[in-house]
Order: sequence, then C-alpha cells, then structure tokens
Amino acid sequence: MQKPENGKQGRIDSSKSNQSSAAPFPALGLRSQEDLEYRKQLRGMITVASKVPLKDRSVLSLVYTPGVAAPCLEIAKAPLTSFDYTLRGNTIALVSDGSSAYSFGNIGPLATLPMLEDACILFKTFGGVDAFPISLGTQDVEEIIAAGIAIWPTFGGFCLSSIDSPRALTVTDHLARAVNIPVLHAHQQGTAVAVLGALYNALKLVDKTKEHVRIVINGAGPGGIGTAQLLLQDGFQHVLICDRLGILHRYRTHNMNWAKLDIARQTNPNDISGTFSDAVRGADVLIALSSWNTITPEVISSMAERSIVFALALPDPGVTPEDAQSAGAAVFATGHPDIPNMITNALPLSTLFLRLWSTV
Amino acid sequence: MQKPENGKQGRIDSSKSNQSSAAPFPALGLRSQEDLEYRKQLRGMITVASKVPLKDRSVLSLVYTPGVAAPCLEIAKAPLTSFDYTLRGNTIALVSDGSSAYSFGNIGPLATLPMLEDACILFKTFGGVDAFPISLGTQDVEEIIAAGIAIWPTFGGFCLSSIDSPRALTVTDHLARAVNIPVLHAHQQGTAVAVLGALYNALKLVDKTKEHVRIVINGAGPGGIGTAQLLLQDGFQHVLICDRLGILHRYRTHNMNWAKLDIARQTNPNDISGTFSDAVRGADVLIALSSWNTITPEVISSMAERSIVFALALPDPGVTPEDAQSAGAAVFATGHPDIPNMITNALPLSTLFLRLWSTV
Repeated sequence: MQKPENGKQGRIDSSKSNQSSAAPFPALGLRSQEDLEYRKQLRGMITVASKVPLKDRSVLSLVYTPGVAAPCLEIAKAPLTSFDYTLRGNTIALVSDGSSAYSFGNIGPLATLPMLEDACILFKTFGGVDAFPISLGTQDVEEIIAAGIAIWPTFGGFCLSSIDSPRALTVTDHLARAVNIPVLHAHQQGTAVAVLGALYNALKLVDKTKEHVRIVINGAGPGGIGTAQLLLQDGFQHVLICDRLGILHRYRTHNMNWAKLDIARQTNPNDISGTFSDAVRGADVLIALSSWNTITPEVISSMAERSIVFALALPDPGVTPEDAQSAGAAVFATGHPDIPNMITNALPLSTLFLRLWSTV
Repeated sequence: MQKPENGKQGRIDSSKSNQSSAAPFPALGLRSQEDLEYRKQLRGMITVASKVPLKDRSVLSLVYTPGVAAPCLEIAKAPLTSFDYTLRGNTIALVSDGSSAYSFGNIGPLATLPMLEDACILFKTFGGVDAFPISLGTQDVEEIIAAGIAIWPTFGGFCLSSIDSPRALTVTDHLARAVNIPVLHAHQQGTAVAVLGALYNALKLVDKTKEHVRIVINGAGPGGIGTAQLLLQDGFQHVLICDRLGILHRYRTHNMNWAKLDIARQTNPNDISGTFSDAVRGADVLIALSSWNTITPEVISSMAERSIVFALALPDPGVTPEDAQSAGAAVFATGHPDIPNMITNALPLSTLFLRLWSTV
C-alpha cells in the first residue's frame, strides 16, 4: 500500500529483491529464483476461463451461435441488462500506468503487470470479484482518462492502482465523472476503508475513542490522503498527515501539490508544522503508508501509552512486530501476508464493488 | 463470419432471435429464453481465474508480496521477459467497437460483448490461447487505434473483430504498425486462413486444382477482402469478389470504399462487371461471407460441375446442406456448429498467435 511521493524519479532498487541479512525481514525476496521459475512455468498467474466446459456440440451451440443471439439483442434493447448477461456483472479492470509500483517507483506498465495479476487473484479469492489487469502504455493523465473512457463498456467497474500522486487522484476523480461505472482507487478508497475497519477494532482493544485519539498518517499519496479524508468524514477529530518533509500545512511551499494542499487545509486548520518525529510524539495512532520516514523503535516509544501502529508499507513494513512491541506498541499490523495481523485492501475493495453493483 | 457492408445503418432485426418456421433453420434461436436464463445465472460466460489456488499463506506470499518483487524487477530490466512472467505470454485482447456484429449490424459495444465472450471461449477451448474481450466505447478510427496503443502492454496480441468495413481494415493496418505485438483481424486473417485450409481439402475431394478453379467471394468486408488477398498470394488465379451490388471492379463508383477499390484492382484486372448471379454462373467455388446475396438452389445449380459452396454467414448460412446438395454442390460447409462441416476461424487464429509468440 506504499506510495512513493514521486514515482517519476524511477527509483528501481534491484537490491530489494535480494535483501541482505541486515534487512528487517531477511527471508523476504530470497526466493527470487524460485518465484521466477514458478511464474515462467505458468506464463503469468491468471487465466481467462469459460464458466461452462465446451464438452459437446450442444454446449457450443448455446455459447456460440445461435445461442449468443438472444443476449446480444436483449442488451441492444436494454443496455443495463449487460450486467446480467455478460462478465460486466462481476468484472472490474485493475488499471495502472506503472508509475508508482510499491517502493519500486516508476518501473513502467510491463514490470507492474505481475503486481496487477496478483492483485486480481486477491480480488477473486477474497472477494469473489473477477478482476482483469489493464496496464497502460501511457503516463499522461488525459490519455489515461481517454483509455478508461474507451474501454469502459467491457467492465462493471474500474479500480486504479500504482499510479503516482497526485495524478492518480486526478485520474480517479475525472474518470469517475466520465464513465457510467464505479471508479475506485485501490488506496484512496480501498486502503482507507481497510484502515478504518482495522482502527475501529484496535481502538476497542486499547479502550480509546475516535473523538480523542491523535492520529498521524505517514504518506501523502492516494492512500494517505484517502485515509485522512475518510477518518475526518467518520468523526475522527485529530489527524495529521506527513510526507518525507514532515507535517503538511497550508503554508508549506516545498514538495507540495494540489492534493497535499487540499488535505492540509482539511486536516491541519491550526497550521501545525514540524518533522515526522514531531508529529508522532505523543500520538495515539501511527498509520504508515510510505517508507520515506523510518519507523524506528524511538519513534514508537515517543508515542502515547497503548499506541496503535499500522506499518503498511510494502514489500517491507520497516519494523518487526517484536521491535514494535518492545518499543511500546499495543497493537501492531502490517500489509504483509507473512506477518500476523495483515491489513489488506482487497476485501473492502471487492465488497465496495459488489455493493455498488447490487444497486444497479 | 458475416460482415454487413454498412453496420452504421444499425439494422437490428430482433426477429432473428425468434425465427419463423419458414426460415431455413427453424430450430435456431427458438431457445432464446433458455439461453438468457442460463447466461443470467452465470453472469456472463467467462471468468478470470488464478492458475494457482490460494490455499494457504505460503502461496499468498509467493503470488503476492514478497514473491511478486522478483518478476517485477526482472521485467524492469528486460521488458521481453514479460512474455515469460506474465499473462502476456499467452493472452490476447479480442477488440471490437460493436459496429458490425454478425448480421445484427451496429448494435454497439455492450450488445456485442456476449459474442466477444463466446469467441474468447473458442480461443481457449480450441486453441489454448487466453483471450479477453475489450469492447470499446468509441467507433472513431483514431480513438480505437489510440485505445489499442494505450492498453497494449497488457496483452501479447490483439485480435480485432466485429468492426465495420473499411474501418476495420484501417484500424488493423495502422494499429499493427503502432504497437509491439501481433495485430490480426478475426476475418481478414483468421477467416482467410480457415477458408484456405478448407478449400485445399475440398479441391482434393472434387479433384480440381487451384490454378484452374474460378472462385467467387460474396462479401467485401475484412473476411472477403482478406480471403481474396490470401488466395491470390497462394497462387489461385481466378477470384472475383462481390458485394450486394455485384462484382467489384475498378470503374464502379457506387457503394465503393478504399479497400474495395484496392481489392478490385487486384482481383479483377479485366474489369468484369455484373451481378452476383452473373459472377457465380459457371464458377467452381462460392465463398459466401455475407447474407446480402441469397444463395438460392438456382444460384448453386448455375455453378460448374462438382461445385464447392462455403456458406459462412452467421447466424444463418441461408441454405441447408440438403438444398445445396440437391442443387448440385459436391462440397458444402457453413460456420454453424449445429451443421456438419463447420469452418471456424478460432483454431487458425489461435495457432497464428501461438506461432508468432514462439518467435519472440
């Protein structure tokens, strides 16, 4: 769920795939060769399958001609029945331009494709929603929107992912107004909902209330901004959002963009300034969606009693559960499937689409 | 494989789905309600499936993070390995704008989606190629090409289908030059190869040779034009192509377009003019890809001895095997799965893509 702030820098750190034993999770990525061989044998992880096996000619007549005539003519008369008679009723496109693929940055559409395929598997497995990757050969905002407008009749929804910020927010906003299907961003909506749910549970465990907790979000991409917006809408009172230069406030001029200024106005009416460490000191909740600011044990121990730490950067959350606990975290979660307490946006995203479709 | 000549007229003949008993195949389409219920239960015919069941956390680690890092970084270094590590190695997009869906004409992208889904099943079942439908919300040539350029990194190839002519030919030609993956048209290449193979077999049965047979193609869309081009390239000497106004020749001015003029120059150097009936009289082979000119028993009986008739219009070939045989056809085939001797482009298309990929 990590969003580097400027994927255009194209930071490709190949050492990530073969981390040294000094890394927090020495086991991660060490299986590179095995992973590669596995995928090579499979030629990718997803396949397009028929829901009906073509076992004899009668099935062929049904699924091909002449059986296909009836749904075509029905949809021509009543376009909304395409949700009944075609894959649209259960299928989204997972759309990316490859400009911000986790911590790898701008690795481009081809290299982002494995991530999209894998996310499609999560959609299907956890949420029962068919998802197909659409990796785009352009990183121009207007061209991405145009591509979405061009292909929308195929799908029941769009989920945008791995596009750098604030372009991702512009695309999501404008595309949603331009097509007749739901448009969600994997992090702006998906991560936000996942974090909100996790936070509700965590607050019960530490016996704190949403009106009183002080929350710091690290990361001012779609995930951080979407989470901040949702928390404010839901009645949380104290939310600060940080990027690598520290707390966002409306008078900051360096490394800002329209979305950061917009969220700074909403989250920080008192114009608090300072570093990430300043923000976290005494906070009840840390939601880290970027690896720019390291979550050291010192950072965690500077937080309030019974603190909640969601270290959601991927692939490396940056701190182990043991270190977080030693430093005083009462609740610790990551986005990593190998670590207990995984928070993932796949389930809430699927559920959002299913609920939106049920209103058609 | 039928291509109405001007899908823009939007001819939607709903009686096709509920044909009267006077139609050549009274049984066809009578199961409309059953077909619709079936598809409604399934919500479309195709699904996106994981090649690996996510049965425990270790598989999740492999297919999601951190396992996904290795292929991403590998592809970032060597883009062509995307054919090894992602779905690109075995997946095409079946692209249409819904402007020419069989005999239904311009029913639009939503109503064409069932046909595309079903064609995807044929690709998978007959050819082992994963195919995903992309039904476009635009019928503008440049916008279709732009959409193809935008989404090409997702796919290993494009197959264009159900786009009216000559736009389909323009799109296929220009898109093929604009992207780094094979671009084929379902009829211009697929039908042409299927017909060529079928014709080779049929000529053996009637003991005629390609240098001497006189061939008439009915239909001047991508299928007719592509077939004519391939037959000429392969050494057939006498090929005439007809549309609903009769034989194409270079001095005809009505109902022409650039592609018809182009193929008229290649097929008809002696500027033969006349009606469809004139063309067929004495011909050895009739390849009907359009239902504009009815294939009556009189038409067939006007052909040469031991004639070959491929009545490939869909969903209604327009003549029964019995009537064709009575009228003198020695070999009769259709594109219809319920009738013996089906000619389909699904297998040659899959094979073409597989062979093209094997050269990567």
